[in-house]
Amino acid sequence: MKRSLGVCYYPEHWPQEMWALDAQRMADVGITWVRIGEFAWSRLEPQQGVYDFDWLDAAIAVLADAGLKVVLGTPSATPPRWMLERFPDMLAVDAGGQPRKFGSRRHYCHSHAGYRKAAADMAAMMGKRYGRDPRVTAWQIDNEYGCHETVLSYSDAARHAFRDWLAQRYQSVDALNRAWGNVFWSMEYADFDEVDLPNLTVTQPNPAHELAFRRFASDQVASWNAAQVTALRPLTDAPLIHNYMGRVLEFDHFAVARDLDIASWDSYPIGFLSDRLEGDAAHKARYLQQGDPDMQAFHHDLYRAMNNGRWWVMEQQPGPVNWAPYNPAPLPGMVRLWSWEAFAHGAEVVSYFRWRQAPFAQEQMHAGLLRPDDVAAQGLSEAAQVALELEQMPDVAQKVAPVALIFDYASDWAWQTLPQGADFDYFRLVFDCYRALRRQGLSVDILSPDTDAEALSGYNALFAPGLAHIPQTLMDALSKANVPCLIGPRSNLMTEELSTALPLGPGIPDLDTSVVKVESLPPNITRQIEGGGAIVHWVETLEGAAQALMHGKDGAAVLTAAGPLHYLGGWPDTVLWDRLVSLICTNLTLTALPDGLRLRDTATHRFAFNYAPETTLWEGREIEAAGVAWWPLPSDKA
Amino acid sequence: MKRSLGVCYYPEHWPQEMWALDAQRMADVGITWVRIGEFAWSRLEPQQGVYDFDWLDAAIAVLADAGLKVVLGTPSATPPRWMLERFPDMLAVDAGGQPRKFGSRRHYCHSHAGYRKAAADMAAMMGKRYGRDPRVTAWQIDNEYGCHETVLSYSDAARHAFRDWLAQRYQSVDALNRAWGNVFWSMEYADFDEVDLPNLTVTQPNPAHELAFRRFASDQVASWNAAQVTALRPLTDAPLIHNYMGRVLEFDHFAVARDLDIASWDSYPIGFLSDRLEGDAAHKARYLQQGDPDMQAFHHDLYRAMNNGRWWVMEQQPGPVNWAPYNPAPLPGMVRLWSWEAFAHGAEVVSYFRWRQAPFAQEQMHAGLLRPDDVAAQGLSEAAQVALELEQMPDVAQKVAPVALIFDYASDWAWQTLPQGADFDYFRLVFDCYRALRRQGLSVDILSPDTDAEALSGYNALFAPGLAHIPQTLMDALSKANVPCLIGPRSNLMTEELSTALPLGPGIPDLDTSVVKVESLPPNITRQIEGGGAIVHWVETLEGAAQALMHGKDGAAVLTAAGPLHYLGGWPDTVLWDRLVSLICTNLTLTALPDGLRLRDTATHRFAFNYAPETTLWEGREIEAAGVAWWPLPSDKA
Amino acid sequence: MKRSLGVCYYPEHWPQEMWALDAQRMADVGITWVRIGEFAWSRLEPQQGVYDFDWLDAAIAVLADAGLKVVLGTPSATPPRWMLERFPDMLAVDAGGQPRKFGSRRHYCHSHAGYRKAAADMAAMMGKRYGRDPRVTAWQIDNEYGCHETVLSYSDAARHAFRDWLAQRYQSVDALNRAWGNVFWSMEYADFDEVDLPNLTVTQPNPAHELAFRRFASDQVASWNAAQVTALRPLTDAPLIHNYMGRVLEFDHFAVARDLDIASWDSYPIGFLSDRLEGDAAHKARYLQQGDPDMQAFHHDLYRAMNNGRWWVMEQQPGPVNWAPYNPAPLPGMVRLWSWEAFAHGAEVVSYFRWRQAPFAQEQMHAGLLRPDDVAAQGLSEAAQVALELEQMPDVAQKVAPVALIFDYASDWAWQTLPQGADFDYFRLVFDCYRALRRQGLSVDILSPDTDAEALSGYNALFAPGLAHIPQTLMDALSKANVPCLIGPRSNLMTEELSTALPLGPGIPDLDTSVVKVESLPPNITRQIEGGGAIVHWVETLEGAAQALMHGKDGAAVLTAAGPLHYLGGWPDTVLWDRLVSLICTNLTLTALPDGLRLRDTATHRFAFNYAPETTLWEGREIEAAGVAWWPLPSDKA
Repeated sequence: MKRSLGVCYYPEHWPQEMWALDAQRMADVGITWVRIGEFAWSRLEPQQGVYDFDWLDAAIAVLADAGLKVVLGTPSATPPRWMLERFPDMLAVDAGGQPRKFGSRRHYCHSHAGYRKAAADMAAMMGKRYGRDPRVTAWQIDNEYGCHETVLSYSDAARHAFRDWLAQRYQSVDALNRAWGNVFWSMEYADFDEVDLPNLTVTQPNPAHELAFRRFASDQVASWNAAQVTALRPLTDAPLIHNYMGRVLEFDHFAVARDLDIASWDSYPIGFLSDRLEGDAAHKARYLQQGDPDMQAFHHDLYRAMNNGRWWVMEQQPGPVNWAPYNPAPLPGMVRLWSWEAFAHGAEVVSYFRWRQAPFAQEQMHAGLLRPDDVAAQGLSEAAQVALELEQMPDVAQKVAPVALIFDYASDWAWQTLPQGADFDYFRLVFDCYRALRRQGLSVDILSPDTDAEALSGYNALFAPGLAHIPQTLMDALSKANVPCLIGPRSNLMTEELSTALPLGPGIPDLDTSVVKVESLPPNITRQIEGGGAIVHWVETLEGAAQALMHGKDGAAVLTAAGPLHYLGGWPDTVLWDRLVSLICTNLTLTALPDGLRLRDTATHRFAFNYAPETTLWEGREIEAAGVAWWPLPSDKA
Repeated sequence: MKRSLGVCYYPEHWPQEMWALDAQRMADVGITWVRIGEFAWSRLEPQQGVYDFDWLDAAIAVLADAGLKVVLGTPSATPPRWMLERFPDMLAVDAGGQPRKFGSRRHYCHSHAGYRKAAADMAAMMGKRYGRDPRVTAWQIDNEYGCHETVLSYSDAARHAFRDWLAQRYQSVDALNRAWGNVFWSMEYADFDEVDLPNLTVTQPNPAHELAFRRFASDQVASWNAAQVTALRPLTDAPLIHNYMGRVLEFDHFAVARDLDIASWDSYPIGFLSDRLEGDAAHKARYLQQGDPDMQAFHHDLYRAMNNGRWWVMEQQPGPVNWAPYNPAPLPGMVRLWSWEAFAHGAEVVSYFRWRQAPFAQEQMHAGLLRPDDVAAQGLSEAAQVALELEQMPDVAQKVAPVALIFDYASDWAWQTLPQGADFDYFRLVFDCYRALRRQGLSVDILSPDTDAEALSGYNALFAPGLAHIPQTLMDALSKANVPCLIGPRSNLMTEELSTALPLGPGIPDLDTSVVKVESLPPNITRQIEGGGAIVHWVETLEGAAQALMHGKDGAAVLTAAGPLHYLGGWPDTVLWDRLVSLICTNLTLTALPDGLRLRDTATHRFAFNYAPETTLWEGREIEAAGVAWWPLPSDKA
Repeated sequence: MKRSLGVCYYPEHWPQEMWALDAQRMADVGITWVRIGEFAWSRLEPQQGVYDFDWLDAAIAVLADAGLKVVLGTPSATPPRWMLERFPDMLAVDAGGQPRKFGSRRHYCHSHAGYRKAAADMAAMMGKRYGRDPRVTAWQIDNEYGCHETVLSYSDAARHAFRDWLAQRYQSVDALNRAWGNVFWSMEYADFDEVDLPNLTVTQPNPAHELAFRRFASDQVASWNAAQVTALRPLTDAPLIHNYMGRVLEFDHFAVARDLDIASWDSYPIGFLSDRLEGDAAHKARYLQQGDPDMQAFHHDLYRAMNNGRWWVMEQQPGPVNWAPYNPAPLPGMVRLWSWEAFAHGAEVVSYFRWRQAPFAQEQMHAGLLRPDDVAAQGLSEAAQVALELEQMPDVAQKVAPVALIFDYASDWAWQTLPQGADFDYFRLVFDCYRALRRQGLSVDILSPDTDAEALSGYNALFAPGLAHIPQTLMDALSKANVPCLIGPRSNLMTEELSTALPLGPGIPDLDTSVVKVESLPPNITRQIEGGGAIVHWVETLEGAAQALMHGKDGAAVLTAAGPLHYLGGWPDTVLWDRLVSLICTNLTLTALPDGLRLRDTATHRFAFNYAPETTLWEGREIEAAGVAWWPLPSDKA
């Protein structure tokens, strides 16, 4: 498959006379795709029931005339002001009880049935007009679910929907009371309509209550998305896409993806480093203008898992952004590096956000490929270079990675609800593991917890850290896969309802290990391990007859194993992660990479990406700061 | 008196078939007391007016059959969900104006008359059923007043009750205006019903207004408790108890205690160190798995003062808890150490929380004596050891300590209201003093500000730091006691209404010292004292003819004295505290203890507790980490 | 003009029998002015429509009899409790949606028409009674606009007034939509009444929306003030004054000043250092008891610009205050130093707050010239010394300073709205510049952005940092003034509506420099400059043919110039500021001052103020800690 570039464009922001020139410049640069429309509701329906699609017809015509393929967005992330007259109660409500008002975007509650239908109706109207239009080659539904913390809403609409959801899930309120252990503090309900949302309680609510609410909230995002899919599907054969975000975990992306054809995400490496990652000051200073060396790859690998490998970068940072606490510019070369890294991980399309920097409104300080005065900005020439290189490059075909990592959104909800230690964060744990694999040069596939044994058996090593609850199907699959597998820490210690598993977990078949005590540690405390490395943040006391492969200096078992299945009773530091990767990946060649260098193997090539701010020498090759290199894999590797 | 052990048990959490085995195991371990019932309202009255006491009858029978004595709790800390249908306005309201909703516990406002009566009615119903039942040997009223910051409520019920309270206190609104100085910013009221609660004001409210509200709020806790006492008293001769918390100062525990027979408290040393104590990182790391060496003893001594020496530990931490930011496990031996420390300070009963760790709901990560899978956890064997040792030990009889420290809840309210420096905290000051006494090996009695001269005269030294207002009765008593006494800093500088005392305080009889200026200092600033040590946080300028015993390096008087009464014009650092203790305790033998070692003298024995994580050598004895030692006092000391 | 001292006095706080003695003591100390009345509404109108001016008559008589001149305040900052019965909706509402309640002061929304009229009516009533009374020599309108963050209110009254204001400004809602770029996220309005206040939006509101709200809020303060001026003007010829604060930027003080005769401000150096200034711990520790060496001078220079040089210090800190996180006492001498510094900067009057420390209510820990027990406090003798010295000193006549600095409130609103980097703060930038000028010994005039070319041409150097938008009139004036001028960083890059200027700014005539990219940097990141110094916080990429006078070590232009106009493309550190000051002030003699020493030249004298805590030697003179020195200027300088 030929990979290609795209760009995000807002014809409604510019005089119509600029469109044709813009389109021609896009084509000249080598851009293939152009996403439009996703914030344009106030122009498509300026008053309720008064539509104006003429300008959109014209824009599509102009873009297509230049040879561009249109990705058309449904505009439901930005309901116009009049929608609030129609549905005054459609706004989300924050955990403190305040409505989240009109005046920016995403000002709606996923549970509001009226607005949900209005959004689906708009999608249908657009589907009728453009669904069979060959110039509209793909669709984007809504925009960035979960952005601005919009998954959890405490509105009246959410409260009523939650009660219905509970009634459906538990069927009887006694079942709910038992499942949650509501007897604990006389929290028992006599009717589903007595259950409130779990905010503003005197102290923490029942974790089962909160987890149910999070599960509900995730389901609401999926069903909200499905409503538009249902409206559009009969009207078009073009693929349906949503653009996800980085480290947004409040909804199960796998569930949303089931209704879509292609996954995509919005990649802002420099903003994410500053705003969404733990890390010491030295790390953040070193990668200030490049982004974290593993953050993008992680999400590429994650979203590749959503729709059988079909995924895009829908928005790629092209220069400084506006929304992080500090917003430096990318080092020269980084826009190209990020683009190639996405392709090397299998992206079909990398689409830059946005064509021309807007001179007004919230994102006027967000760079585009063009400056607001229409002059080329940093990103444009790098994008053009990538376009040229894509022409010359054989396809970046994907193959199965040697290592798989299981990622489970519900585990994040569980540990957010019941962290037990202030530093226990699911993403952080999984990302620590991912980093450890990558700094040994490994390519990684990320898998959903629904993966079956057959798929798992195709890997050389499996990692499943921090899974709050391991469903029996997954436990069976891990067991049957017969691949070296690391489970833990804090894995399968809970039931699906976030009560303590009994008998005590992890309950791994044939592995006689139980977690009989857990401790959380403050940041300056470590427990040293025999042979090197330490446990931080989280320590478990393991009991049982299983063979211990690692011990603490106090003699306590830290890693046990039975055959290929290993259980890890703590949160490793960097040194211990390296030891664990070596131990589990016995069948793989590991290479300790220089700081900032990362590799990715496709079916035919090895790519190297230098995130470091200095030239790196690796296997005889000099790779400059922000540089990309690739070369054919030896035939025995490909 | 024979000391004994107890445990907290929730029969409603477990199948009835487990009860008898549990009871037998408790007895086998050496446990005497079992507390039940305090969260069980939804099982005792599942619907309004529909009662079910059968299960409780059965539980009491099973427990008593095993030889256990039952402590029965009234369940008013957990009103069932239907109570909110009856009293929709019964919830407390936070300072930001939001209701504190159902879904956890303590979801009520102490000022709500309807719920107050409902709670008293329930207490009466239980009293009628069990008040003369010999198996119910003690009662607990409600649970942990003030936990989750539930003393201060800004509800409509509180507003109305506050107005009534003000009218009662001041009789005329002009008197209130004058007492508060409301002329200051035209804050004068024409009617008590114009007075609002002191939250959400544009800038700080009148401190007299806020102090009145705090005094009112404390009174509401006491009268809330009294309502249940009034209901129960005619129905039983068993002692009535409440279980207080650590460092909860929002209500006057002495006032609540006046209606009760035994004080008790809930001791969670590791959680308190992490969550409720100032301290540098090194101190917190060193005592991470032991708790602060003085925090438990302080509260033992405090609660011993409440009911003529009758006090219990109602809940003793037996392993890791769930509610602190980080939750490590106690070092082996600490459960025993904490238990023995309580006995050495005079506890009649030490009761562990809880029997078996619950596998569900909010506290499922809180350890019990048993693991959730019914296997013995860390605490059980240590409890059993204590039970055995209690058998062999002669009674831990108490005697008057050599040193007394006066503790006044109202002073905390005053300084919370008018701190004048961000680091000025009453508890912190008093605890600094207590620590200084204890690191010299002293046993301490904590006294209420109502103590009379006769009682005071039984001590060798008195300490009265930070008393916002010293009532004339106390000042007279301190004066008449004729015992070396340290008053200050910031003592008696205010009136009872939190206006500035005139003439300027401290107004100590025969001591010609006035505080004519005060300064608060940021953490990195000190004022050095001649001879060693420094003033931190708080500096006073002293004026007057009194003899100065200590001076700053700038020549300013820091400590003045006339006869036994001393006034201290600043907040001492550690070195200066040590000097002050030596100076005031001239008649006592002081011993600088190794870091982490603490002593406690009973009538017959000296106990040593090693909180350090390493073995300590002291007076020829080796005491291991988390170790306890005791030996008879020389006969001249006993 | 003879300079003189004043004091703030509250006769309503003290028994009438004390007034005459107080007045006599004031006069004896050398005090000329006495401000009264500004918080006394509840005593002037105890019930609605029931007035009592007798006590005020008596107080004025007593004070005047002692020879004092009365400054009479209108009491609108403290509406009495009954006013809320009359106007229940008069309270301001905070950004979270909560009313800001009665119980302290400034409890009103500037947009409430009813209370605005009531306040003007009270001013008129006072004007009728005292406007022609020769004993009332000046008036103060209200008190400390903006204190306690009272400019921005989100009340219903504000919402309605904002809509009217928008309608007036934009005339058509389409014009508003275009001006704001509301098409961006479908934020378009069909009617002015659809526009809400910009709080509680899901993510940041449109910056143009927020800036319009801030501009509106500033206008509301000005028109609120004007309402009382309009009421008073026909009734009196005495000057009308308002007392501003330090670093309150939420309203345009120049706009308020246009309706008044004299500017004044409330100077609390020690509180401001602790509470309102960035700075490292060493700086804050060094100046703990003196205040920042430039903070007072900056505000003196700022407020001197408001009313043609007529300005006072209405409230001068005389000892420890009560409202900062930590409140140490001034070093001996500082009260005198602060007083003389104000006079040297042209103050007509320095008035101490307050006469006697109140023993009650919110400010009872705030020192006065007298202690609450009526004994002289630290400030009194220093005030008396200043009074004596004023007698002996020839007038402190002012002259034009060699350097001017332009200060623009709207730029603060712009950058608060659109900071783009967490460390970008307008005041901080301007203050960095001011400090750089002052540590070279320069006196500075601060100018409004309305200053014309003729006025500008009287200076040797001009500094105009951080002006979000430079109106054409100002740009023309800077250009025509033909004086070395530093513009930048981040200057004139925006339109008046906070959209990006096109063509790209700064748009300086004849200077071919455009800012084509901007970056914000975290605190630990710097960009080094050739020749010394660095850029911090904020970096611009400059493009164009203009001559570059400074470059980064990466070769990028940092400072460009064409003739006298310079543009600076980044935020300088201290070293770079020093280089810039040298470069721009080529016609001036610069003197690197010792740390803590500051100079001020009047028409005839040079004053030196030693803020350092140690004696400073300067040009052969020893100036002690907290010392002031002055000597005649050489005749060629005067």
